[in-house]
Amino acid sequence: MIAVTGIGEVRPGNDLAEPLADAIAAGPGLESGDVVVVTHKVVSKAEGAVVELPSDDPDAHRVLVESEAAEVIRRRGDLVIARTRHGFICANAGVDRSNVEAGWAVLLPEDPDRSAHRLRLRLERRFGVPVAVVVSDTFGRPWRRGLVDVAIGFSGLAAVDDHRGRLDSHGNELVVTEVAVVDELAAAADLVMGKASGIPAAVVRGFVVPPGEDRATDLVRPPDEDLFL
Amino acid sequence: MIAVTGIGEVRPGNDLAEPLADAIAAGPGLESGDVVVVTHKVVSKAEGAVVELPSDDPDAHRVLVESEAAEVIRRRGDLVIARTRHGFICANAGVDRSNVEAGWAVLLPEDPDRSAHRLRLRLERRFGVPVAVVVSDTFGRPWRRGLVDVAIGFSGLAAVDDHRGRLDSHGNELVVTEVAVVDELAAAADLVMGKASGIPAAVVRGFVVPPGEDRATDLVRPPDEDLFL
Repeated sequence: MIAVTGIGEVRPGNDLAEPLADAIAAGPGLESGDVVVVTHKVVSKAEGAVVELPSDDPDAHRVLVESEAAEVIRRRGDLVIARTRHGFICANAGVDRSNVEAGWAVLLPEDPDRSAHRLRLRLERRFGVPVAVVVSDTFGRPWRRGLVDVAIGFSGLAAVDDHRGRLDSHGNELVVTEVAVVDELAAAADLVMGKASGIPAAVVRGFVVPPGEDRATDLVRPPDEDLFL
Repeated sequence: MIAVTGIGEVRPGNDLAEPLADAIAAGPGLESGDVVVVTHKVVSKAEGAVVELPSDDPDAHRVLVESEAAEVIRRRGDLVIARTRHGFICANAGVDRSNVEAGWAVLLPEDPDRSAHRLRLRLERRFGVPVAVVVSDTFGRPWRRGLVDVAIGFSGLAAVDDHRGRLDSHGNELVVTEVAVVDELAAAADLVMGKASGIPAAVVRGFVVPPGEDRATDLVRPPDEDLFL
């Protein structure tokens, strides 16, 4: 896990791929099979997915959350747990006011898989090696305190490493072990990125990704299979 | 992240600390501040937290799950989501039949924090450096497919890295950012351990753990604050 420093501030409409690639080139470089994890915040900023919150409108944040929510799942006081139009269930439908200029909010990218794929193509062209890209966000979860980073978009790997049918070390068939490797990659990358340090990317080297070309929506459990909706 | 190989099979009642320390010594060694992540399965086995499931009793697994559950939260067909007596909410109250001899099930350790603390003391004595120990398990979660590793016991670090009151890169105060670092460490370690490969431990080096002496139950969200019970 290698933090990618020196990307600098990304402003709405800026190209992200070039400063990201420059920072990687000045740091760890890229090797075949590397996974580049990028926090969605810089992706959203580059794509212009930011909204000004008028300081004279105390309801602006709430209205924005409602407009980003495809469905409100739970509400308690100011806290809204919502399903986004992508299918993710998270606080405030992904509307976030941290690590952005005061008075602004960052939204989720419109299509985080496409964002990941575009970054991947640019990085592969620049460095000449096949890589995977994961776009991460920080989600809470039921039952456990604290936030963890998860994948909201990716390109170049499978969503889960499906161990079903493989044998464990005792020769038992593994029947239900689908590991959400891409979420574990996002969580691992957060350890070197950090919330306060403003490092928006990391390179994971030496991990053999599960091959595939899934989409992040493949990680969303179908509502009719979900016991907690 | 360094996988610890060569621990060998842990049988009920075996000492775990010695083969773990031997394997670490033959591999990465331990440096001050390292985090040793150990899957609970070998911890439970060493502590004798295994149960034989009579092959002539098809209900034995179900009865065992019920007896391990402090409270059944949801049930669908054979799937039981339960709160364990520790407070964790997980499938089958932690009863697991993978990576154990056929006809046996592994339970959660009685007190995974104490298990972690004992391992930590043995490792610190052997290697003469302060370390942290995390005992992990593989949990599903609502809304998202796939499993991720989380911490069910630990010693030598805080449960969450509390960013509240710190400033982000834009000078905004971070108000609700409590990062479940210990869960991210467990998830990261799973990337090098794997489910089918039977590697039960990993060393995380170079990560500055949040200082503290929390317990894993500090990660359990109080039920009256939980919107999904």
